[in-house]
Amino acid sequence: MKPDLLLTNIGQMATLAGYSNTPKKGEALKELTIIENGAIAIKDGIIIDVGRTDEILANITEMPDLPPIEFPGMFAIPGFVDSHTHLTFGGSREKDFSMKLEGKNYLEILEAGGGILNTLKHTRASTKDQLVSNAFSYAESMLSMGTTTIEAKSGYGLNTENELKMLQAVQELGRMIPSGLVSTFLGAHAIPPEFKGRAEDYVDLLINEMIPAVAEKKLAEFCDVFCEKGVFEVEQSRNILYAAKCSGMKLKVHADEIVQLGGAELAAEMGAISADHLLMASDDGLEAMLKAGTIATLLPATAFSLNTNYADARKMIEMGLPVALATDFNPNCANESMFFTIALACYKMKMQPREAISAVTINAAHAIDRADSIGSIEEGKRADILILDCPNPEFLTWRFGVNLVHTVVVNGQLVHTKFGP
Amino acid sequence: MKPDLLLTNIGQMATLAGYSNTPKKGEALKELTIIENGAIAIKDGIIIDVGRTDEILANITEMPDLPPIEFPGMFAIPGFVDSHTHLTFGGSREKDFSMKLEGKNYLEILEAGGGILNTLKHTRASTKDQLVSNAFSYAESMLSMGTTTIEAKSGYGLNTENELKMLQAVQELGRMIPSGLVSTFLGAHAIPPEFKGRAEDYVDLLINEMIPAVAEKKLAEFCDVFCEKGVFEVEQSRNILYAAKCSGMKLKVHADEIVQLGGAELAAEMGAISADHLLMASDDGLEAMLKAGTIATLLPATAFSLNTNYADARKMIEMGLPVALATDFNPNCANESMFFTIALACYKMKMQPREAISAVTINAAHAIDRADSIGSIEEGKRADILILDCPNPEFLTWRFGVNLVHTVVVNGQLVHTKFGP
Repeated sequence: MKPDLLLTNIGQMATLAGYSNTPKKGEALKELTIIENGAIAIKDGIIIDVGRTDEILANITEMPDLPPIEFPGMFAIPGFVDSHTHLTFGGSREKDFSMKLEGKNYLEILEAGGGILNTLKHTRASTKDQLVSNAFSYAESMLSMGTTTIEAKSGYGLNTENELKMLQAVQELGRMIPSGLVSTFLGAHAIPPEFKGRAEDYVDLLINEMIPAVAEKKLAEFCDVFCEKGVFEVEQSRNILYAAKCSGMKLKVHADEIVQLGGAELAAEMGAISADHLLMASDDGLEAMLKAGTIATLLPATAFSLNTNYADARKMIEMGLPVALATDFNPNCANESMFFTIALACYKMKMQPREAISAVTINAAHAIDRADSIGSIEEGKRADILILDCPNPEFLTWRFGVNLVHTVVVNGQLVHTKFGP
Repeated sequence: MKPDLLLTNIGQMATLAGYSNTPKKGEALKELTIIENGAIAIKDGIIIDVGRTDEILANITEMPDLPPIEFPGMFAIPGFVDSHTHLTFGGSREKDFSMKLEGKNYLEILEAGGGILNTLKHTRASTKDQLVSNAFSYAESMLSMGTTTIEAKSGYGLNTENELKMLQAVQELGRMIPSGLVSTFLGAHAIPPEFKGRAEDYVDLLINEMIPAVAEKKLAEFCDVFCEKGVFEVEQSRNILYAAKCSGMKLKVHADEIVQLGGAELAAEMGAISADHLLMASDDGLEAMLKAGTIATLLPATAFSLNTNYADARKMIEMGLPVALATDFNPNCANESMFFTIALACYKMKMQPREAISAVTINAAHAIDRADSIGSIEEGKRADILILDCPNPEFLTWRFGVNLVHTVVVNGQLVHTKFGP
């Protein structure tokens, strides 16, 4: 078969191929398999062959029109999968931070028009096109830093019209950028101010109007709930997730971030694909997730920006729970760099470089139920590949927190981001 | 006068002009003066006019050959001054981190060939050209993230021949890149292994051979000492600094990083331009620095990577001490992003955005005694200017830790780094 594109002489390559089935107990602890002097052949956006350069060249019957592109001394991994973001929102929230530093508390910031109410107001006031335009700039930045698949949640509209607008913005963005997009309905992100003191009424609206509308228009693949004390309690979260499941959506849960509420247990019980945050998750909850095959998605940049402790990644990894890492990019944690997240994971959560790499690629692909098509460099998968300006996996941790992308291949297309075209 | 280059319609501009004299008590607390719809006229690498766009256009008698370049909605500040780096070294140290995570202690890492001995070995084994080539790649990355002036220390040669080689590499690099370079002799970085147990002999070598050789060849503007328990004690540090001062070098001190040894007091006593780290500095030491006009240079990325506490920036700022921020880029903290340092300063050290901005520009220029020529956007200063893809100063903290550079102007030359030429 004649490839469209041939990448050769890649110094080191971590294909993550051993991780491509459903994660198994202890999997995150495995050594990365490294191919030296690697090569990848691509046709129609799909990886058609991968291995050592001499093997791949021997397999090719007809050379591509373009000469092979060589990457000596560099390190190739699958494109980053950012499996938890709030990509789409109106406005920005830079005034909040200065108020916080000046000692203003959460309520004072809300009263000054800050916090989530600010984002809610600006999101509702934005047109769909404005939301697309904002999100486009962040998605472009993500691509320049190696993120080739983005999960994007709604959750700043908080009524049917505006939640649909947010999800339509994600859908439209998906037609504009080469990156993969996965859409998640998060109407259960907060109780909107007009439902203050009437949480049950908002849950009814979610179940009886919003979820059916989202499902009918096929605007979301996942439904997520912010299951937290004072936001959506476990019973309310269960009802929302059940309704979403019955409507054909897959499930995610914002679980046990601030208090130990039983979010991890609920995620396992409902067969959620992932449970996210998990700073306060109980051992029983984590065990239940392990049995249910629910991925633990950890979001260290949020802990960094809120000055909280980090989730106990080492405990989860030691017990065999597959761990994914995501940025949680949102108006309260506006950092979209997977390199920053990897730095926090390694320096603050004591993850090994190989564990962090699996957590931002194949495990993250599992966290959005896309491991059949992305997350590893394997024959038949979408050709989403990062060439990093870095000789080996450990270097990623040594040169922490900076963009090491040399070249991004997304859907089989070369996107040079660092050294220009 | 006919400018070579005219930047106009800059959304907001913080010139830092009010900060351009010797820092005064309380200065770091001042509000940033913001010019809306700003413009900058440049000729022969020098800023010749700065103000509101209408004013600048009215002042111009002859337009430049190039049309004015407009930056609506963006934010301009002086180029970042990274006033404390170990830019030049041989090898890399990615193996150390995995060993640390595996529970190996400092000595075990040293025995396995890691730690500073690894860098010492690779630096001594490198040719000057290899050192230049390594440092070039880091300096290029710094420029792409807005750093237009870099202080670069020696300190991994630890004998006359190799310290001179490191400083010559800095000198040669300075001829290859547009960024400004300031060279610092740090022969007193560690006791080299061949002087184990004979620290006084190494101090003698520093004073009687190395400092005279560096001074004679005019290879360093500053001399720095790692004044720390078990490395160079206060008395030894004083003698080294005194010798350097007599040889015409200005002084810096690595002070009170790990234990409270009196490094801040020593820096003040010797009239050092800056004292750096200061995690454990005494109140008396900080007061002495204030009186002596010694700049406090804080290095939060080092604290991040070593998992220590951060220096007490708030205390220093409240007492009126001028604070600079630098990356401390080195083989044990290989992050060269001023945006990362600013994020740590704001989120972990509670610095306000305006304080962080002064700390990476004009105060950092003072920390390398260059405030007469860089560090602010003012008539007569070198045209080192960042145009950030960001509408206002607070946004820098909100969108934390990522490269917000749109365009860098260094020495009057446009360097587009984000969106290509």
